[in-house]
Amino acid sequence: MSAVTLTAIEGVGEVRDGDELATLLLDALDRQSLNLARHDLIVVTSKVVSKSEGRVVAIEDTSEAKVALVERESRRVLRRRGPLRITETTHGFVNANAGVDLSNTDDGTAVLLPRDPDRSARALRGEIARRRGVEVAVVVTDTFGRPWRQGVTDVAIGVAGLRPLLDLRGTRDANGRMLDATEVAIADEIAAAANLVLGKAAATPFALVRGLDESYFGDGSVAADLVRPVAEDLFR
Amino acid sequence: MSAVTLTAIEGVGEVRDGDELATLLLDALDRQSLNLARHDLIVVTSKVVSKSEGRVVAIEDTSEAKVALVERESRRVLRRRGPLRITETTHGFVNANAGVDLSNTDDGTAVLLPRDPDRSARALRGEIARRRGVEVAVVVTDTFGRPWRQGVTDVAIGVAGLRPLLDLRGTRDANGRMLDATEVAIADEIAAAANLVLGKAAATPFALVRGLDESYFGDGSVAADLVRPVAEDLFR
Repeated sequence: MSAVTLTAIEGVGEVRDGDELATLLLDALDRQSLNLARHDLIVVTSKVVSKSEGRVVAIEDTSEAKVALVERESRRVLRRRGPLRITETTHGFVNANAGVDLSNTDDGTAVLLPRDPDRSARALRGEIARRRGVEVAVVVTDTFGRPWRQGVTDVAIGVAGLRPLLDLRGTRDANGRMLDATEVAIADEIAAAANLVLGKAAATPFALVRGLDESYFGDGSVAADLVRPVAEDLFR
Repeated sequence: MSAVTLTAIEGVGEVRDGDELATLLLDALDRQSLNLARHDLIVVTSKVVSKSEGRVVAIEDTSEAKVALVERESRRVLRRRGPLRITETTHGFVNANAGVDLSNTDDGTAVLLPRDPDRSARALRGEIARRRGVEVAVVVTDTFGRPWRQGVTDVAIGVAGLRPLLDLRGTRDANGRMLDATEVAIADEIAAAANLVLGKAAATPFALVRGLDESYFGDGSVAADLVRPVAEDLFR
């Protein structure tokens, strides 16, 4: 029986500049009596990764200041509507407002995306391995809108120990016919899945994912594997 | 502890024209000793829904025949590249080749999307309620590509008993601040999550999802809630 379990890791509390993610995570796991094992996967939201990396900037609570900050974090603006910008970030992600979290600008701060989310994921994975002697996979998530469909979903912006694309090319279905679905973006599917337990308003930046197929684990990066090169994109 | 479990429902086998989905599903659940309960959710892939509804058509194995069929299932072509079409289907979905499954054209057949996937979901939900006296939610999924990101993910094309968008507008985070993430497309996140257990080549068109927040359940439809109106879309 193939089953995957998503568990919110509760009781982490507010994350501040310079807090160490591995400490927050492992302490919370201990309180919940959860031990990490091989082929476990940890999902962490980009917001706490950014905070722990000091990616918080002062900003005036004006439209002009917000737009200027968003454009500074972008290498290309794809669409404008009022103060909203759909841009390609310096990482190559296409999303609203370059992933800048402007929700706390009344406190005079905004939170930028991590500079290199794959590296952030590798750092957390490495620190967990160092402290607990177990190699888990890590997915850093952020919330993106989509064209054509209402609502936002969480996607992967950084991974470690996970192959973000599952290559089904050349495999056969139960009837022996070639599958035409080519590559499945499992890192994005994992991010979306985790948001089902993280999506509510509680302070739960971490989720534990168990039971993933062993073939999903290995080397990979969002930047190299999930970001579609502009030349191959029919919508840029 | 908030946990969601995704379980593949195995042993269903090949689905044929006119097979009754509820029978296939309930027999498979019985073999796996799984009993359905309130706030359970069943994910079913569109391909078996289409087959059970007779949405299989004869087609010649030529590019011209495939393109003609895809365009007949579309109300608008957004992009062309060789024989590939990115279109808006008659339902309003934007995807590759209008969701037509052309992988078996060597057998002389193609599988179209269900005519009204929300209705298909409601029919399965109703039949489960009639036979087992329990109201579960149902999500019909299909595999879509995305602009800007490599790989495909599963999304919801029909729902019953589920509110596809979770409205977080006006709620506050753990620090009492308003959340700016507005509406979360949980139906798509559920579809993506289920594909983590269905995505491999085995014949498993059904997944059971347990532990979803009670607030996710209620009335809704993909057509009304998830398809973005053209006038609001920045990329059409």
